Amino acid sequence: MAVVSAAARSWVRGADRSGFGLGHLPYGSFLDGAGGGARLGVRIGEFVCDLAASVDAGALGGLSDAENAALRSPNLNALMALGRPAWRSVRACVKRALGDGERSDRSAVLLAVDEVKIALPFTPADYIDGYASREHTEHLGQLFRPDEDPLPANWLHLPVGYHGRAGTVVVSGTEIIRPRGQSSPDNGDPPPFGPTAKLDIEVELGFINALDTPLGFSVPVRAVGEHIFGIVLVNDWSARDIQSWEYRPLGPFLGKSFATSIAAWVTPIDAVEHLRVHGPKQDPPVLDYLTRTEPWNFDLQIQVWLTPSGGQSELISTTNPKNLYWDAAQQLAHATINGAALRTGDMHATGTISGTAHRTEGSLIELTRDGQQPLSLNDGAQRTYLQDGDNVRLTATALDAHGQPLTLGPVEGTIKPPS
Amino acid sequence: MAVVSAAARSWVRGADRSGFGLGHLPYGSFLDGAGGGARLGVRIGEFVCDLAASVDAGALGGLSDAENAALRSPNLNALMALGRPAWRSVRACVKRALGDGERSDRSAVLLAVDEVKIALPFTPADYIDGYASREHTEHLGQLFRPDEDPLPANWLHLPVGYHGRAGTVVVSGTEIIRPRGQSSPDNGDPPPFGPTAKLDIEVELGFINALDTPLGFSVPVRAVGEHIFGIVLVNDWSARDIQSWEYRPLGPFLGKSFATSIAAWVTPIDAVEHLRVHGPKQDPPVLDYLTRTEPWNFDLQIQVWLTPSGGQSELISTTNPKNLYWDAAQQLAHATINGAALRTGDMHATGTISGTAHRTEGSLIELTRDGQQPLSLNDGAQRTYLQDGDNVRLTATALDAHGQPLTLGPVEGTIKPPS
Repeated sequence: MAVVSAAARSWVRGADRSGFGLGHLPYGSFLDGAGGGARLGVRIGEFVCDLAASVDAGALGGLSDAENAALRSPNLNALMALGRPAWRSVRACVKRALGDGERSDRSAVLLAVDEVKIALPFTPADYIDGYASREHTEHLGQLFRPDEDPLPANWLHLPVGYHGRAGTVVVSGTEIIRPRGQSSPDNGDPPPFGPTAKLDIEVELGFINALDTPLGFSVPVRAVGEHIFGIVLVNDWSARDIQSWEYRPLGPFLGKSFATSIAAWVTPIDAVEHLRVHGPKQDPPVLDYLTRTEPWNFDLQIQVWLTPSGGQSELISTTNPKNLYWDAAQQLAHATINGAALRTGDMHATGTISGTAHRTEGSLIELTRDGQQPLSLNDGAQRTYLQDGDNVRLTATALDAHGQPLTLGPVEGTIKPPS
Repeated sequence: MAVVSAAARSWVRGADRSGFGLGHLPYGSFLDGAGGGARLGVRIGEFVCDLAASVDAGALGGLSDAENAALRSPNLNALMALGRPAWRSVRACVKRALGDGERSDRSAVLLAVDEVKIALPFTPADYIDGYASREHTEHLGQLFRPDEDPLPANWLHLPVGYHGRAGTVVVSGTEIIRPRGQSSPDNGDPPPFGPTAKLDIEVELGFINALDTPLGFSVPVRAVGEHIFGIVLVNDWSARDIQSWEYRPLGPFLGKSFATSIAAWVTPIDAVEHLRVHGPKQDPPVLDYLTRTEPWNFDLQIQVWLTPSGGQSELISTTNPKNLYWDAAQQLAHATINGAALRTGDMHATGTISGTAHRTEGSLIELTRDGQQPLSLNDGAQRTYLQDGDNVRLTATALDAHGQPLTLGPVEGTIKPPS
């Protein structure tokens, strides 16, 4: 077993190789059950570092008043709004406090992550969902619009996106209630109505915008690093039968708006700088305002785990956002090229991340070809779409800058029938 | 001139026939320039009744602690969240305080509306835009999809909608910066890029949702009156060239997200109960969850005024939401049939309100047939789409329950070039 370098070592038991070591330090919001409100925390191993309590304990010295106030707030919004210099100074301070170095007095206040209640890590403002994977776009085009070119005419020229429902962005672990709705009728009949028969997942990566911008301001591709605080795993639950009936001409609505799950822990960009890679060459060339300057894709092994009610968890897909055609910077530059203002807590997500090969698709509609090729599970059962009681868990792994494991906060949810 | 009945008379000078008399009493948020934060107010004539100051002055006696706290908050959100009994009790109390009856001691605190700065009347949560006008839908289908049936296959079965950008909902008077973006290329060329050449309006009515609901809850049509606090005029600015290039397959995005203007004053449903009318008969019959129980269209004369830079204001269209195919209750019931949670401050708007006859359309793309039939203005100029310096103002008039004029808060904006 490799020796953990001193710079990467935490004094917190089990943290170094847990995926939540000193090179990671993602932020979340929690309640401790003692009746107070939500508080900001940092995940370290199987613990949450209570930032307000750690400030009070003197474990996080040297921060400004504004930074201390942000660490005493209920979630990430206040810290994000302070901007990148504050993010870096707070991160360095937390790293010192949790590191096994001379300057740590081990006075940081830790709580077992299993003993706190997890809340949304930030207050979602607007939520934009993208369509950045060429493979996913082509797969869905083939299924939804078999008579047309699977790639829409605009797709190679702009990162297609739309607004999702921010009010139903929920934290990992929230139960997902199977939505009801209309689906396509047979000719002349009224539309069938009932619980969706095609409840699906969408494996995505979300980017959290930190700063307010004024109306009329466009974020240039080169400045996106000042605006994006961090990343989260996203599962954008989808009801395919509702979606395919409703979406023309104004786009997805009720087929998506019932729930979008995000991880409890926001990974700062500073923890994953070394995982940034360029996307594939773009042909035809994109317009100037979309021209890449830095790598803004992320090399992460994302795994999709399905656990039937009472059954074993099994891996049904493995995918990676490194090959997305449109990167996070292009998405944000595009979303603001019209002068749309941003707010702290805006999230934009990649859209479904799919590869070319079977079992690299980021949705069941692709994995099963809209149910025509069911997945065979280990216990002999089959799956087209999700059944009540199914749990879906997305995980993502990489190595941190010190070579230790880094695991993004997982996102999971279990399907419940409508009441 | 008709005599104003005693029950309808206000002691505030000029209020009775101003459109903002005792039968109206819409809410807004304002700053007085003295450096404090935004405060909640009620419009009466050319004045704002400062609710916090009026509570302090003893002008609004008999309210509960929660109601008093809501009146001391910066905008409508807190009052809306208290629910309909509180809305009615506060309204009755304000009516007494501003009425010319025995129980008014004229101690309510008034400020001239011209001397305060107006803010958004509520904090927008999510914003849903509809497509409720059959005439508008058919007009746009003919222009955008000339080879297809102008009415999409789903349109008669469900109130089509999508999520707009809540973070760019702005209050009346906010300058509208002409958005830049891509538009459709000629075959093989890169997409043209620049300020939109087709900047348009969309005349809409917005409905403000008052209450949080849990995930999995659907608002029944019959209960919508418990959830909708009030109405506002909306101008959903649109860039038609950007929109027509980007919208397939996920719907409008940058063609809309740069700005949506709403009136400064929210008219409570209680002030316009008598204006509620049934929409047209629906054929084919709608599904049970969409079946109307009460009238939820509103009979209001909406006028669209265009003022070129330095020129005279002129009326370019007159329309009425009373004939919308889908009503406000059906829209809200549909938007939640999948269990999507609501939050205080959610807004859903009708979509563009158009009639059949020329000069009853709610957008320039319809009024000018996408610029092919320009409007001739009084000064001899012509308009296809909006020019820099143009001001657009929407007004809406009716009679209040006492037979006095009632004018919804107007919504206006002036076009500025991008910087």
